[in-house]
Amino acid sequence: MQQKIINPQDLAFQLFELHDVERVLGFDRYADHSRETLQAALDLALKVAAEEFAPHARLVDEEEPRFEQGRVVMRPEVKRALDVLRDTGLMAASQDYERGGMQLPAAVAQMCVGLLKGANVGTQGYAGLTIAAANLIMVQGSEAQQQRYAEPMMAGRFFGTMCLTEPQAGSSLGDLRTRAEPQADGSYRLFGSKIYISGGDHELSDNIIHMVLARLPDAPPGVKGISLFLVPKFLVTEDGRLGERNDVALAGLIHKMGYRGTTSTMLNFGERDGAVGYLVGEPHQGLAAMFHMMNEARIGVGLGSVMLGYTGYLHALDYARERRQGRPVGEKDPATAQVPLIRHADIRRMLLAQKAYVEGGLALCLEGAMLVDEKKHAATDAERRQAAGLLDLLTPVIKSWPSRYCLEANSLAIQVHGGYGYTREYPVEQFYRDNRLNPIHEGTHGIQGLDLLGRKVSMAGGEHYHELMRRMEASLAEARQHARLTGSADRLDVAMRAMAAATDAINGEKQRGNTEKALANATLYLDAFGHVVVGWLWLRQALRALSGLAGKGEQTPEFYEGKVRVCDYFTRYELPNVISTAELLQAVDTTALDMVDEQF
Amino acid sequence: MQQKIINPQDLAFQLFELHDVERVLGFDRYADHSRETLQAALDLALKVAAEEFAPHARLVDEEEPRFEQGRVVMRPEVKRALDVLRDTGLMAASQDYERGGMQLPAAVAQMCVGLLKGANVGTQGYAGLTIAAANLIMVQGSEAQQQRYAEPMMAGRFFGTMCLTEPQAGSSLGDLRTRAEPQADGSYRLFGSKIYISGGDHELSDNIIHMVLARLPDAPPGVKGISLFLVPKFLVTEDGRLGERNDVALAGLIHKMGYRGTTSTMLNFGERDGAVGYLVGEPHQGLAAMFHMMNEARIGVGLGSVMLGYTGYLHALDYARERRQGRPVGEKDPATAQVPLIRHADIRRMLLAQKAYVEGGLALCLEGAMLVDEKKHAATDAERRQAAGLLDLLTPVIKSWPSRYCLEANSLAIQVHGGYGYTREYPVEQFYRDNRLNPIHEGTHGIQGLDLLGRKVSMAGGEHYHELMRRMEASLAEARQHARLTGSADRLDVAMRAMAAATDAINGEKQRGNTEKALANATLYLDAFGHVVVGWLWLRQALRALSGLAGKGEQTPEFYEGKVRVCDYFTRYELPNVISTAELLQAVDTTALDMVDEQF
Repeated sequence: MQQKIINPQDLAFQLFELHDVERVLGFDRYADHSRETLQAALDLALKVAAEEFAPHARLVDEEEPRFEQGRVVMRPEVKRALDVLRDTGLMAASQDYERGGMQLPAAVAQMCVGLLKGANVGTQGYAGLTIAAANLIMVQGSEAQQQRYAEPMMAGRFFGTMCLTEPQAGSSLGDLRTRAEPQADGSYRLFGSKIYISGGDHELSDNIIHMVLARLPDAPPGVKGISLFLVPKFLVTEDGRLGERNDVALAGLIHKMGYRGTTSTMLNFGERDGAVGYLVGEPHQGLAAMFHMMNEARIGVGLGSVMLGYTGYLHALDYARERRQGRPVGEKDPATAQVPLIRHADIRRMLLAQKAYVEGGLALCLEGAMLVDEKKHAATDAERRQAAGLLDLLTPVIKSWPSRYCLEANSLAIQVHGGYGYTREYPVEQFYRDNRLNPIHEGTHGIQGLDLLGRKVSMAGGEHYHELMRRMEASLAEARQHARLTGSADRLDVAMRAMAAATDAINGEKQRGNTEKALANATLYLDAFGHVVVGWLWLRQALRALSGLAGKGEQTPEFYEGKVRVCDYFTRYELPNVISTAELLQAVDTTALDMVDEQF
Repeated sequence: MQQKIINPQDLAFQLFELHDVERVLGFDRYADHSRETLQAALDLALKVAAEEFAPHARLVDEEEPRFEQGRVVMRPEVKRALDVLRDTGLMAASQDYERGGMQLPAAVAQMCVGLLKGANVGTQGYAGLTIAAANLIMVQGSEAQQQRYAEPMMAGRFFGTMCLTEPQAGSSLGDLRTRAEPQADGSYRLFGSKIYISGGDHELSDNIIHMVLARLPDAPPGVKGISLFLVPKFLVTEDGRLGERNDVALAGLIHKMGYRGTTSTMLNFGERDGAVGYLVGEPHQGLAAMFHMMNEARIGVGLGSVMLGYTGYLHALDYARERRQGRPVGEKDPATAQVPLIRHADIRRMLLAQKAYVEGGLALCLEGAMLVDEKKHAATDAERRQAAGLLDLLTPVIKSWPSRYCLEANSLAIQVHGGYGYTREYPVEQFYRDNRLNPIHEGTHGIQGLDLLGRKVSMAGGEHYHELMRRMEASLAEARQHARLTGSADRLDVAMRAMAAATDAINGEKQRGNTEKALANATLYLDAFGHVVVGWLWLRQALRALSGLAGKGEQTPEFYEGKVRVCDYFTRYELPNVISTAELLQAVDTTALDMVDEQF
């Protein structure tokens, strides 16, 4: 565990025991893979993360990218690390062999990226955005676009961005104004300004491919009038050579609290005669195209939160074991030696909470990644449809739960360090600053709550929601066969029933047409729902750990015992808060809705 | 409210209606004061805060003090602001007239400092530490020490520090090693290293007076062997002139996540022939001497948290009123204009939570400040004793509750701002970074929890705890006479009973000698106890607001209505979580205690 990015036992447990990633090797797509090839990819990612990414994580925070004479200037370590990453082939981890990819299962591919995030989220950002943009072209783009743009991106020669936000619109994408004018040759000219464009300019790659949301001249207002365009920094000739500089100008850099290594830019499209762009997919279908990739992007955000929480936890654990301070309660003799911090109950409680959040969050993100594979590659239509529905339902939870609770884990890691944790001599304060972005980007908690409660829970007549409940019930039944888990099962059961009652009450309100009232506490619903889902994943971890304790597993008995105990902790200390929230929700409380401006 | 430091209606309400600070004007000490003189001091503090402190708050974060050739170099605005503050006389706000003080009641004096904290906590730090150190000398020092050191401090010519922490001891003060060797002339020579010394070196004042904890040669081990010394940077002659430089060396600066304007230093005492120091108070009574001032210092920390939360809330409120984004749930026409953020229920919920935390926290800190005055100046021994006991009991809550929940308010202020809130173009991210110190310094949450549950609750046979319960019961009875408050009263009642049962169970465990088990969840106890206390203060605010609505008050009806609604919010959304925590506590849960190192 020397690298302090992940506990290797936990990584192996989660992938190969809890989620049994080997079961997807039965899908045709993964027929060439084995436990060994998956492990080799993970080992490679961990090595690059520890050796090339982690060492300059603090450096890119202290010396963030600068705007100098129209260029973005940054530390040379960033390019070196990304060059090494490119050479591993991991930037195409999940892509087809014929495109130069490794055709790895989604859970393993996501995990490889996750390890880089835990090591240095700032530098990883450039690669992560490129992978996401390439995926988007591979799904939505034409064959020519795939060859000309996506393949060099997967090979790490071109990097990519996502250009959604505009200053006047923020989260309200329907209000974006960037316009695209059709040209005689079938291309478009784009005019408009975008903000918060991560990796929007740099000299890390030969080219930058911007995926831009804009409006055609005949576009209807709102989200139904948005189209997706591909806008390269340098035009690319038919034979793949770089042509002239496109009309995309760097208007400035945005300076952030954390995540400083990933430069955030303002870009102006069409300051001169318009930025040359190419339509991706159908006209006016841009938002749907973008959202097609959102499930995976949001798993990426969730996993990024988890990994920042995870590295913070490992740093805190290490510190608590090494740092001697104070004496046990009841030890009155000041001449005795000081004990390691981990001997204090309150320090253990803070470590337990961190472990519960980060390992619970990891189980959640990997659950989502497994569903990505089942949705695409499962044997039957029915299985694929069910996986797709569950993934849709869980996506807002996967995006938001870790970004709240693994941020809290980072705060607890600071607290374990005491005064040292607040200084920039120790890394935990940076994790906390870096992680504070995750509740905001790719849809705030508020947006995710409306998505979950306003759409996902009642989607397909509640079919996906009921399927999730059915799976939870099955785990409860299994857990009740073990004396050590009946308490946890009972506590989860109570929380599930409370949330089910709340869901029914809210659905009733929606059916009566009181949408605003029904959704007034959607963020609280999201939070409580997430706790129930993670409680379920902890119960499943404990179940698997009991098998391990019975000899059916590869980890140490102490590791398995720890899992059972954290399940107990989570259902005792964390789940009960769901009950009071569920009662508020069931009553369809309108306290916030009724407060008027002048009363603040 | 243009200054965004405090809502003037709330300030007036809290001081003059809720806490009725005018009642202390009946004490002899304050006979010269009137509503007008108190208001004049507050107005002066607010003017200095807004005009001299706030404008450079971001600047001292961006350009924090630097270590150059053995000196601390910082922005000139800091000295200018502190010079203006010195000239107002506010640095001696609570001191005697004869010492050059203003003899203001504690609640008003604290509030004056609080306004400076809300404006610029970094620059205020130098003044705050000086006030605290001067107070310490005024209570514990000899007449000569008071004249030679404290008076120039109160006049702002000398600044002060508190030197407690050492690298090997951290929170475990009993393990500090700095030693003091007696000299023939009655002075001492000090040898040792201190860390995290805020304001430990600078050129803002003619001299710096360090209040240092150290051990005499014959000291017993542990906290019973600590003495308090006064160590000036420059020796001071009998006639008050500055003499030679003392043997106190700046070993380096510590760089922090926030609170960057207040330089944090490492100081070496006695690198040459020993730093000249003077004993303050009795030998081996240093910790008691220091803790004599702790109640007020901890109110200061709590109030600092509140004011950082408060300014963040006002910035978020302003932004939510001005920024237009999105449309109400149910508005399907994208051609309609975007609405202000405050129209969205989830934004209102986040503003409500912030208002509940910061105005609840302010009520809590002012409750403590009122007790400071009653403890010192109330008419009878019994009243003074009761006030002192309640203050002791509430101090850990006053220190810790705001430092958790007003930090959460700062996080919510970022969330209301969305992506902008994460950038350094907006001030809310700095408030969040600044406020993250408060759960750590002056005793972490863990330390405060042990203080509350291990000592304060059972102090004097539980007398102070029962007095607090009695006062809460009285408020419940009063609230139940108002139809609008019966729901809140009932919810508070349930939470109180749950915590009373938990307290009884824990006390039983202590009496059976199981101290470690009894205190294992002391931090959770602290948190839940704090929520009950703040719930009580919200009920009292609502009661007072109903009087205001009935015509007995100076604020607007909307303001009073808002108070009643926030009380409702707090008891509906916040208090119920106390119940589940109380159940854990009542069961004397040992999940964290039982987890062993290898299971992490």
